[in-house]
Amino acid sequence: MSFNTFGKLFRFTTWGESHGPAIGCVVDGCPPNININEKDIQIQLNRRKPGQSKFTTQRKEDDKVQILSGIFEGKSTGTPISMIIYNKDMRSRDYETIKNKFRPGHADFTYFKKYGIRDYRGGGRQSARETASRVAAGAIAKKVLTSIIGKKYNVVGAVTQLGILGCNIKNWKDKYINKNPFFCPDKSVVKLWEKYLLTIRKSGSSCGAIIEVRARGVPLGLGAPIYSKLDMDLASAMMSINAVKGVNIGSGMSSAQLTGEENSDEIIKNKNSIKFKSNNAGGILGGISSGQEIIVSFAVKPTSSILKNRKTIDKFGKNTNISVRGRHDPCVGIRAVPIGEAMMHCVLLDHYLMNQAQCGN
Amino acid sequence: MSFNTFGKLFRFTTWGESHGPAIGCVVDGCPPNININEKDIQIQLNRRKPGQSKFTTQRKEDDKVQILSGIFEGKSTGTPISMIIYNKDMRSRDYETIKNKFRPGHADFTYFKKYGIRDYRGGGRQSARETASRVAAGAIAKKVLTSIIGKKYNVVGAVTQLGILGCNIKNWKDKYINKNPFFCPDKSVVKLWEKYLLTIRKSGSSCGAIIEVRARGVPLGLGAPIYSKLDMDLASAMMSINAVKGVNIGSGMSSAQLTGEENSDEIIKNKNSIKFKSNNAGGILGGISSGQEIIVSFAVKPTSSILKNRKTIDKFGKNTNISVRGRHDPCVGIRAVPIGEAMMHCVLLDHYLMNQAQCGN
Amino acid sequence: MSFNTFGKLFRFTTWGESHGPAIGCVVDGCPPNININEKDIQIQLNRRKPGQSKFTTQRKEDDKVQILSGIFEGKSTGTPISMIIYNKDMRSRDYETIKNKFRPGHADFTYFKKYGIRDYRGGGRQSARETASRVAAGAIAKKVLTSIIGKKYNVVGAVTQLGILGCNIKNWKDKYINKNPFFCPDKSVVKLWEKYLLTIRKSGSSCGAIIEVRARGVPLGLGAPIYSKLDMDLASAMMSINAVKGVNIGSGMSSAQLTGEENSDEIIKNKNSIKFKSNNAGGILGGISSGQEIIVSFAVKPTSSILKNRKTIDKFGKNTNISVRGRHDPCVGIRAVPIGEAMMHCVLLDHYLMNQAQCGN
Amino acid sequence: MSFNTFGKLFRFTTWGESHGPAIGCVVDGCPPNININEKDIQIQLNRRKPGQSKFTTQRKEDDKVQILSGIFEGKSTGTPISMIIYNKDMRSRDYETIKNKFRPGHADFTYFKKYGIRDYRGGGRQSARETASRVAAGAIAKKVLTSIIGKKYNVVGAVTQLGILGCNIKNWKDKYINKNPFFCPDKSVVKLWEKYLLTIRKSGSSCGAIIEVRARGVPLGLGAPIYSKLDMDLASAMMSINAVKGVNIGSGMSSAQLTGEENSDEIIKNKNSIKFKSNNAGGILGGISSGQEIIVSFAVKPTSSILKNRKTIDKFGKNTNISVRGRHDPCVGIRAVPIGEAMMHCVLLDHYLMNQAQCGN
Repeated sequence: MSFNTFGKLFRFTTWGESHGPAIGCVVDGCPPNININEKDIQIQLNRRKPGQSKFTTQRKEDDKVQILSGIFEGKSTGTPISMIIYNKDMRSRDYETIKNKFRPGHADFTYFKKYGIRDYRGGGRQSARETASRVAAGAIAKKVLTSIIGKKYNVVGAVTQLGILGCNIKNWKDKYINKNPFFCPDKSVVKLWEKYLLTIRKSGSSCGAIIEVRARGVPLGLGAPIYSKLDMDLASAMMSINAVKGVNIGSGMSSAQLTGEENSDEIIKNKNSIKFKSNNAGGILGGISSGQEIIVSFAVKPTSSILKNRKTIDKFGKNTNISVRGRHDPCVGIRAVPIGEAMMHCVLLDHYLMNQAQCGN
Repeated sequence: MSFNTFGKLFRFTTWGESHGPAIGCVVDGCPPNININEKDIQIQLNRRKPGQSKFTTQRKEDDKVQILSGIFEGKSTGTPISMIIYNKDMRSRDYETIKNKFRPGHADFTYFKKYGIRDYRGGGRQSARETASRVAAGAIAKKVLTSIIGKKYNVVGAVTQLGILGCNIKNWKDKYINKNPFFCPDKSVVKLWEKYLLTIRKSGSSCGAIIEVRARGVPLGLGAPIYSKLDMDLASAMMSINAVKGVNIGSGMSSAQLTGEENSDEIIKNKNSIKFKSNNAGGILGGISSGQEIIVSFAVKPTSSILKNRKTIDKFGKNTNISVRGRHDPCVGIRAVPIGEAMMHCVLLDHYLMNQAQCGN
Repeated sequence: MSFNTFGKLFRFTTWGESHGPAIGCVVDGCPPNININEKDIQIQLNRRKPGQSKFTTQRKEDDKVQILSGIFEGKSTGTPISMIIYNKDMRSRDYETIKNKFRPGHADFTYFKKYGIRDYRGGGRQSARETASRVAAGAIAKKVLTSIIGKKYNVVGAVTQLGILGCNIKNWKDKYINKNPFFCPDKSVVKLWEKYLLTIRKSGSSCGAIIEVRARGVPLGLGAPIYSKLDMDLASAMMSINAVKGVNIGSGMSSAQLTGEENSDEIIKNKNSIKFKSNNAGGILGGISSGQEIIVSFAVKPTSSILKNRKTIDKFGKNTNISVRGRHDPCVGIRAVPIGEAMMHCVLLDHYLMNQAQCGN
Repeated sequence: MSFNTFGKLFRFTTWGESHGPAIGCVVDGCPPNININEKDIQIQLNRRKPGQSKFTTQRKEDDKVQILSGIFEGKSTGTPISMIIYNKDMRSRDYETIKNKFRPGHADFTYFKKYGIRDYRGGGRQSARETASRVAAGAIAKKVLTSIIGKKYNVVGAVTQLGILGCNIKNWKDKYINKNPFFCPDKSVVKLWEKYLLTIRKSGSSCGAIIEVRARGVPLGLGAPIYSKLDMDLASAMMSINAVKGVNIGSGMSSAQLTGEENSDEIIKNKNSIKFKSNNAGGILGGISSGQEIIVSFAVKPTSSILKNRKTIDKFGKNTNISVRGRHDPCVGIRAVPIGEAMMHCVLLDHYLMNQAQCGN
């Protein structure tokens, strides 16, 4: 039971609304004696930060994180790490005209109906601003896992589909991902994507995206049978991100169209190392990591706040129209990359600790 | 922390291995005073039961359930409901020849490496036999929700893709689903599917499938913000089913390719009822049910136990080959339909109770 | 959220009513590769079993346990261990005359008012018969901890107060405890206790008791800050046992009357070992085990089912009288000794695993 | 699994160290549409605040709370309520001389041994300063329950034993409790207590205390069988408070010395209301509230930080002596009164919500 808490042994609880004074999170279960400082976290927050290119919202947020507890003389003490990010560039007046209207595709309608009350300013708690807290928690998880496993552990996310345009996975270059405004791993498509997204934005519309997150150096044995499967928790993690509507592990939905011999990954011993001939499983067998690369992808639906005129109702039950002005990402999927990576780090650390608990190693 | 427990307020814990004396589950959090009997549960178990057509494994299991607690004079008492199903048709010798080999696509390798021990008979705990317990728990959840909400509440699952062959969703007929061996909702494709699957089976191969589960009559307001989103818990539920590799809510992965105006479902007041013009959201907005039909689909990979010869290693680390004889479903996805329905019932009841807790209604 | 589950990483879920077909439990989170067999569990169940002396109820129960899952070739596999105990000597007719009356001191009144339904036979789920499941789970925890820590780990419980008669803690002899029908550690008082309890029983009354449980060889460092304190979880564990009304850690309630210098245990380094000059803390400082003996005691109220005539009401709200015949323990506290020990084992293993998770050792 | 989170449906997570920049908590599961403001919380914090009389520590803390989220236009929204209290009067230099020594009776030794690191300043996370967060969370729970149940709901705590001096429970006057520096309910003993505590303080020593907390107007039916018993969760709650070593429900430890007829509370129907002739049960039968007053008491050990010279070791394992100067409460038990009340509110609200979930009322 945890409305606003994620994780089992490595847990984080997030709080805060888009236009409240601040947002933040409390990370619990971080092992002691890990070097952690605000800079480690800031680097990740900066990657998610809005206003960095013409392809993201122009809301200007510093997203400056402060650590309030849990670190003593530069090291984690095993006690909860509280982090706070003050909200800066809030223009609540942008929301005055639509405060009584339910924006289609948003949670306005369901929140209001469920709770009988709603902070309409910038979506309040529903706002994707909450994901900054996840990125902060993920930065800690990353630090812990890197400290335990070493540099061979790394997680890389990328946008592999932007609206109707895919990239070529075979051209995936890690290094290229952070060098373009789309977190695109394939240099050959970036110009095309740029053109496409500008058109989308100009037309007052938006588009969806697919994000793929890969984790390397993950120890064999993470995950647990049946209801703590690693893939189950990853699906849960990714689906909890705003606007996500689908999650794949390895071949994912496509595996339905494969035959048994196409799908199952053959195992081969080569000198002293065990190798798989393919990775349809996405690095997870029976809910447990196999030592292969963990591969998760997820779809982010197009931004629902668009300039185009849409039919909706207001809180008094009257039919009306809405066109959402303000500063919105033409493709919210892009900024989901560091969020997906963060969730991957958190799930992996959680399972790392669980494995340590259950199997003592 | 619950390796073998699913749910928060309505919880079930499953236990048992494929070739042990029995399997079963304990259902906790069932509201009191609900009429429940073994027949309600048996009906659902029979739908999952193997050996019912030539398209499923020929293992003959009665799957006869006994209730051992929690029911008094035909009604639930609010105390845990323990159910047991004895295993009957176990042919452990089928597994003797492969006991030291890791079957590709199965959890053999990861279980053994994680735990240092493995019950190899029929996959032991990894076996999809565990899902019978889910179906039993789901039958109880169904009974409770129907008792509370009434007959307008219903959940229907179907196979919408069999290997490379899709069905036409527009032809979906609930009534037809239980009248063919594929849980196919589209009469026009059944002959084709039959032919296709027979070919697959004859060749000693297998194929994957996509299952779609729809819930109607679900009250508005189920789900909770951020880390208890209804879609998050549904993704988690479906991904926990053996062999599932992808989960979609509504338009799912396809939503990545839509524009904002194509994707967001417009809201309209028509006389006294609120309607949506489309259902890309799959009935869930911001993690909370909107009153629309809930739509979840998931991909089941092809059966990994196939006759075809595959490369693998044994527990001593030696390269070897494997060809799995025995009685296996050519498409395990088919029998996943009642399992998907069961998980839907369980997640919805869990969230129904949570909503009752948090919002008092 | 776990109405019928105890524990975090080492968890057990119990089910079953006094007069249903069976009771049992599912143990989850047991580490793999531990030798466990039914005999290990039976030994502990026999210590709790009724009908062993004239000082306990004459209900004759075999309490024969069967393991249904989780053990393969004599070893735990890391999967859930399901255990079942069939009920034998049920005389439900004993309860016919009082089925509509609420027995004072029992949960009859509150269960009925809460759930609107009640299995009146032998108390149904409220019956202390549920504690057999705890003893079974505790036997597994004991096996695991002994296997990990070695023989220096041991837990010993005893009755230190029987009604108005205390024993002399200074005379505590472990070996003597299992050699008298009271689990009394002090040989000098047994004759007196015997006489006292016979008088109590003859008069149709009952008496309370205090049980003390000591754990030795517990590693330093078990427990976690604030809301997973070891003493907090021990208090929770003991208070969950039927009829328990008070729990002490170390000096417990008496510590209120001490001064700072009397209470705080001085620490001394003696050669290579760290020693405490006293143990008012009961082996727990700041919620974390200090390496000293863990000492917990708890009070069990007198059996509420007595022959003496008592005023009560019936389920129709009418005033009436009740005198409970049947086979009842004159002091239920006595049989609480193996239960208290079992809960101690379970809490310690749970925290052992948690410590392994959080601190990696 | 929740090292720093308390509760199931109504949950709060606390963070912060004694001498860090701030402490705080995140309250999750608060029902929507409840009027809550900082003043409601401040009132309770002021009751716990140090420096209010010569009988508490002279550390001067404003304990000024700020709400950072979860409240919109004066009402709860159902989203997490984050509260922060900045630390002001920190004199870390007081701790310089003892930074390498383990204070007897404190968690210094166990924290250091467990985590291999310790924030020694003012006890860091072990400090009772954490309890301010509990009081803040409790103030919210109180507001919710009063809003739902009405004014008949109230919780009153008092000190009933100060060191060796008890008060007379028959003289209990609610109104008097907040009018003396000891939260003493019995006017006749206050002068004596004052004299006694001044002597204790002058001698550089300290004393323990017993706190009793009573809840009235609690609905019948809160609590749940076996492992979510109301008394179990209350024991857990109170034992989690710093320095608590024993917890009683109703007659508590004394119930061991009663006979069956003395102990079990007879039930009587009087006109239209059901009454109990006594309340040894402390308002809880079978783990479920009976509608009677809930009575919980707990013992707080004497302050461990005393001027008197004590033997201990340092972090290098060397024998040494310690005498703790600084500003300490001569009896920490006194300030535990509002903390005990807060925990009572939180546990009751948690169970109120659970009951609403399970039984729909």
